Amino acid sequence: MQIAILSFFHYFSYMFKKRDSVFEVEEGKFLSPKFDSQGLIPVITTDIKTGEVLMHGYMNSEALKKTIETKEAHYWSRSRKSIWHKGKTSGFTQKVIEIKIDDDQDSIWLTVDIGDGASCHVGYRSCFYRSIPLGPIDNGREIKMKFTEKEKKFDPEKIYKDQPNPTKI
Amino acid sequence: MQIAILSFFHYFSYMFKKRDSVFEVEEGKFLSPKFDSQGLIPVITTDIKTGEVLMHGYMNSEALKKTIETKEAHYWSRSRKSIWHKGKTSGFTQKVIEIKIDDDQDSIWLTVDIGDGASCHVGYRSCFYRSIPLGPIDNGREIKMKFTEKEKKFDPEKIYKDQPNPTKI
Repeated sequence: MQIAILSFFHYFSYMFKKRDSVFEVEEGKFLSPKFDSQGLIPVITTDIKTGEVLMHGYMNSEALKKTIETKEAHYWSRSRKSIWHKGKTSGFTQKVIEIKIDDDQDSIWLTVDIGDGASCHVGYRSCFYRSIPLGPIDNGREIKMKFTEKEKKFDPEKIYKDQPNPTKI
Repeated sequence: MQIAILSFFHYFSYMFKKRDSVFEVEEGKFLSPKFDSQGLIPVITTDIKTGEVLMHGYMNSEALKKTIETKEAHYWSRSRKSIWHKGKTSGFTQKVIEIKIDDDQDSIWLTVDIGDGASCHVGYRSCFYRSIPLGPIDNGREIKMKFTEKEKKFDPEKIYKDQPNPTKI
């Protein structure tokens, strides 16, 4: 077990510079991502054509490596607890145009091309298809949102068939 | 203490619908955000003018409520462990244009107007000012990024003076 952990560490350690100083993390040129206590880093994915945010996901170091090398988005599925090559089931893969990392290197921004496809397992192009009204909140009333996408791009029941829904209560 | 917890729960419970079913969370009109074990939900903030991602942050339920009601972005600062009215120190507040939530309601997308200001505490307009090269990774070599923003919008030492840097190793 100890050997396995050491090999795993060695496997990724060459890619990432050790986080030695705040100055280097913020102002340096070397990739030194910070993974959380679960080994994950949050990922924002936007559409090269429309500029919209398609989804918010997570990567572990292996998913990040695969994404960099294959130029197709790979995430860590927290519900399935495995590497998730986005679009493998639906056909809607995400071709990676650019990967950026933020100032303290604890979040990633992917710009992707999905052509005329979709990104959301519910069937919409973007996962963000509902808008929250701004302004005073009525006491005692739940907040009612507006749908901003009118039509689904695909029927999830046809595409995913018997696969479990990743959304958890 | 028990009363305090109950009051706190009551204070926010009217805003958010209980997450009763996956169908309602995904296809329903009511806001039912999922906060993680720390009481936080991740937030993506994009610029209304340029479409670029400015930052990735977190909100607790109070920050979300304040953002909806005041139309200025409030986050939860994990380093300072307090509500963070973005721009209160630097003057670079974020005027909220739109708030969206994703399919399983566990992440938020804010579209904001920052005028000609900046969003990043390092001084750049966006926190995402470095790009990771795509393609095969050289064995044994750390990954060298490219700066995509050439100039800082402000000098953080002048603006933040003696305040501690929020970036942690």
